[in-house]
Amino acid sequence: MTPLQTQTTADRMTADLETASLNETAPARRGRRRRGGGGKSGPDLFPQKPFRQPRHIFKPIEAISADELESIHDASMRVLEEIGMDFLHEEARAMLKAAGAQVKPGEDRVRMDRAMVEELVAKAPSEFVLRARNRNHDLRIGGDAIVFSCVASTPNVVDRDGGRRPGNREDFQKLLKLGQFFNIIHAPLGYPVEPVDIHASIRHLDCIADAIRLTDKVLHLYSLGKERNHDGIELARIANGLTPEELVETPCTLTVINTSSPLRLDTPMLQGIIEMARAGQVSVVTPFTLAGAMAPVTVAGALTLQNAEALAGIAFAQLVRPGAPVVYGGFTSNVDMKSGAPAFGTPEYMQAALVSGQLARRYNLPFRSSGVCAANTVDYQAALETTLSEWGAINGGGNLIKHAAGWLEGGLSAGFEKFIADIDLLQKIAEYLTPLDVSEASLAVDAIRDVGPAGHFFGTEHTQARYKDAFYPPIVSDWRNYETWAEAGSPTAYDKANMLYKKALEAYEQPALDPAVDEEISEFVDRRKAEGGVPTDF
Amino acid sequence: MTPLQTQTTADRMTADLETASLNETAPARRGRRRRGGGGKSGPDLFPQKPFRQPRHIFKPIEAISADELESIHDASMRVLEEIGMDFLHEEARAMLKAAGAQVKPGEDRVRMDRAMVEELVAKAPSEFVLRARNRNHDLRIGGDAIVFSCVASTPNVVDRDGGRRPGNREDFQKLLKLGQFFNIIHAPLGYPVEPVDIHASIRHLDCIADAIRLTDKVLHLYSLGKERNHDGIELARIANGLTPEELVETPCTLTVINTSSPLRLDTPMLQGIIEMARAGQVSVVTPFTLAGAMAPVTVAGALTLQNAEALAGIAFAQLVRPGAPVVYGGFTSNVDMKSGAPAFGTPEYMQAALVSGQLARRYNLPFRSSGVCAANTVDYQAALETTLSEWGAINGGGNLIKHAAGWLEGGLSAGFEKFIADIDLLQKIAEYLTPLDVSEASLAVDAIRDVGPAGHFFGTEHTQARYKDAFYPPIVSDWRNYETWAEAGSPTAYDKANMLYKKALEAYEQPALDPAVDEEISEFVDRRKAEGGVPTDF
Repeated sequence: MTPLQTQTTADRMTADLETASLNETAPARRGRRRRGGGGKSGPDLFPQKPFRQPRHIFKPIEAISADELESIHDASMRVLEEIGMDFLHEEARAMLKAAGAQVKPGEDRVRMDRAMVEELVAKAPSEFVLRARNRNHDLRIGGDAIVFSCVASTPNVVDRDGGRRPGNREDFQKLLKLGQFFNIIHAPLGYPVEPVDIHASIRHLDCIADAIRLTDKVLHLYSLGKERNHDGIELARIANGLTPEELVETPCTLTVINTSSPLRLDTPMLQGIIEMARAGQVSVVTPFTLAGAMAPVTVAGALTLQNAEALAGIAFAQLVRPGAPVVYGGFTSNVDMKSGAPAFGTPEYMQAALVSGQLARRYNLPFRSSGVCAANTVDYQAALETTLSEWGAINGGGNLIKHAAGWLEGGLSAGFEKFIADIDLLQKIAEYLTPLDVSEASLAVDAIRDVGPAGHFFGTEHTQARYKDAFYPPIVSDWRNYETWAEAGSPTAYDKANMLYKKALEAYEQPALDPAVDEEISEFVDRRKAEGGVPTDF
Repeated sequence: MTPLQTQTTADRMTADLETASLNETAPARRGRRRRGGGGKSGPDLFPQKPFRQPRHIFKPIEAISADELESIHDASMRVLEEIGMDFLHEEARAMLKAAGAQVKPGEDRVRMDRAMVEELVAKAPSEFVLRARNRNHDLRIGGDAIVFSCVASTPNVVDRDGGRRPGNREDFQKLLKLGQFFNIIHAPLGYPVEPVDIHASIRHLDCIADAIRLTDKVLHLYSLGKERNHDGIELARIANGLTPEELVETPCTLTVINTSSPLRLDTPMLQGIIEMARAGQVSVVTPFTLAGAMAPVTVAGALTLQNAEALAGIAFAQLVRPGAPVVYGGFTSNVDMKSGAPAFGTPEYMQAALVSGQLARRYNLPFRSSGVCAANTVDYQAALETTLSEWGAINGGGNLIKHAAGWLEGGLSAGFEKFIADIDLLQKIAEYLTPLDVSEASLAVDAIRDVGPAGHFFGTEHTQARYKDAFYPPIVSDWRNYETWAEAGSPTAYDKANMLYKKALEAYEQPALDPAVDEEISEFVDRRKAEGGVPTDF
């Protein structure tokens, strides 16, 4: 075992919160951390299972027939052939033209025929491993594997105590810590909130360095100009201790490529695809096809557009580097037709998630979906919409489920209480996806015989041997009876989550980092800052 | 069309709430009710689709393999063969003995071999129609059909204004009205709350008469002594205008038979099966197998017990009357191992629902599941647990989904706000289960061509022709932006539901009832009350 493998809070079954809340500093505690047996003396506020990716043990739901799926495929191919897509990048257009696309001089429009698209898309791997600096946190992307990542890219952050405020580095770091602390967050993947108090020219340097130091999970970077891609890839290379040659063969960072729907890939996004593919890193190509706004008002029409745009981006990535790891992103939802605001967790969203999964599987690509809502606070609506979006994502066979903890307001804010409440949802989903034990002992015929009619099972040996780990213990659900609960002040899940997120932050421990790597990160960040960071005039 | 078919609020697309809140009495409004076009002048608080049963358009999830399913079947057969089940009813034991069961004189225990059980269970219909007095509200039970019914049998009722209080007739009637008002509630099916202010000896008479008058949906009765079954069946016969001969061939009322787990069917339940089966009416045989309490701590063990008990009850019903309509009830959940309290919407609950559906399909029986939670109020927990239990029920192929609106506290109270919030969930599920339109027009290639890159779809003809009905409009979800929402006082879904349930009660209109039937109901109730109702010393 390397030092990286021994020094993580996250694999403990139970966080010892009594100990954690003593007035000791985190580094001081680190030396006497207990593994496995920890937490016996304190209240089990966060009984966690070890880090593990849930698997799709159930077949995804096929929402439409194979013929109907082909009709969406065919329609999206007609879009790419007849209408085309604007690629706002000269080199990209030249590459596409050289590969057989129809491109007129002086125009952005690129038309690709279906043979070209399908041939390129077929070069993408159906499954790959994303390396984390703690190799226990490596992620399998695709197949039957599931990754949950937390809220990302919101401009605001909110909790009860501080109210709603613009994103800032302190909250950014706290949310990263939560993403590290909870094993069910397989990687944070993005800035959980945008820290606007760091200047845009150097923000990516500080943020990625923070992510490397505060977490030991897979790294993410934004495609906002190729210099940021270069910096992020280099930081990921250093964090993972890879040579440049090894890096190209080792996916260890991921970017999301959003098309500018309808039918446009802008310059930074195309730079992102180019830089990531050249470096052997991952592009998650996700059109934001909001039915009724940037996409047709019909779900099938929005999916046609989504499919055309996603495949165009993925085909281009394969042109840059055949075999470049990519993910098919589905983010189709509908708008509130009264206000034009995006809606999430709607029935249309669920249907779109199912069909997006069918499309991704048709092309043998990993499928990205999301756990999202339009709620402004942590109420019934928040849970309803978030759970329904997860229902779509899981039934749809989602491999990478983004924004799955902490997302509020259609992505306009990250909520601390929402983060904790969603952790309960995600942990429940993981248990739901754990194969049921149907062994002879589990069938319990002998226990039923021993108890007989009108008896009770609690005192039986069968129960006593199993009850401690028999059931998932919720962290936010309050199962006290009404009277006890009312005496305690009738706390809602929001109230409980407000208490719990602070306890989780207290219990968080910074993962170890090789001092040599730490120093190399600092040197790189300092040098790039001294050079002025990156241009911010794009 | 009969008068019964024309006089219902529920089939209107939109409730005209402005009109409804004027100071007119409901009867006065009834004459000038508008159908279809109603509601244009008022706010569309409750845009409802017409009464319609959702269908399982997706294949149910198979949580365990066919072999594993057989092992649960086999284990439950061993339970019935080797351990047996107590039948607390002499006539029932005699019937079972005559049919080949092993019964010793002076003992309650009945052992049936698997051949006998399977032969009897095979006589049950896989699908049947339950008649309502408004024939538009007839229900298909089984196959791919889904029925949502609302909260039932709770001792308490709660709303923000009145707090939590024991069940009473006023609240009972209000909840029935909500069950009638919302088309997504296909039948209330049970006392939404127990009206303890009516004496137990005559409660069933007043309650069933209320259900007949305040709703025109399928009737339910409790099996609490055969006299109540007799009275309930007779009231259903009168309400449906059937002769006694027609009644036996026309399922029009339903009872839930709960076994006393483990392994006991008590006297009133066996009387219920006998009376309902003899009258051709429906028994929903639902063991309450709570893993770790009345059932083994393992989900597979609890399901073994559930299956044994459910099949024992169903087999007995077929012995009483071959072909008697029955439903396979699955209510397996787990307890909170700290307190012993029942938990709902847990991962174990979801897994049990999936396997229960597999078991029901193995025996070609309709499957009953539930939409339930352990929450004390309408918060994130309430939505999370309720939605997860629906996820299990729908993925499990549930045909009859009980308690799907208004259930709180593990069934200890019915909540007015919870009722409304759950309506949103159920309506969303119904939309999710609506086949996606993948027609050429829906694929929208021409609209995509017209808009082109960087355009917007809102103004297109394709959108304008469809936007009004394109998306499900939520009733509880608040999609206003944060600022507008905060200015309005930051209302939660609970707040909104508190307002909406009152608006729904204002908009409720009593369905018409043939005056001759009304009089016959009154005469029957008055006569039975004069006779002293039913014994209450069981």
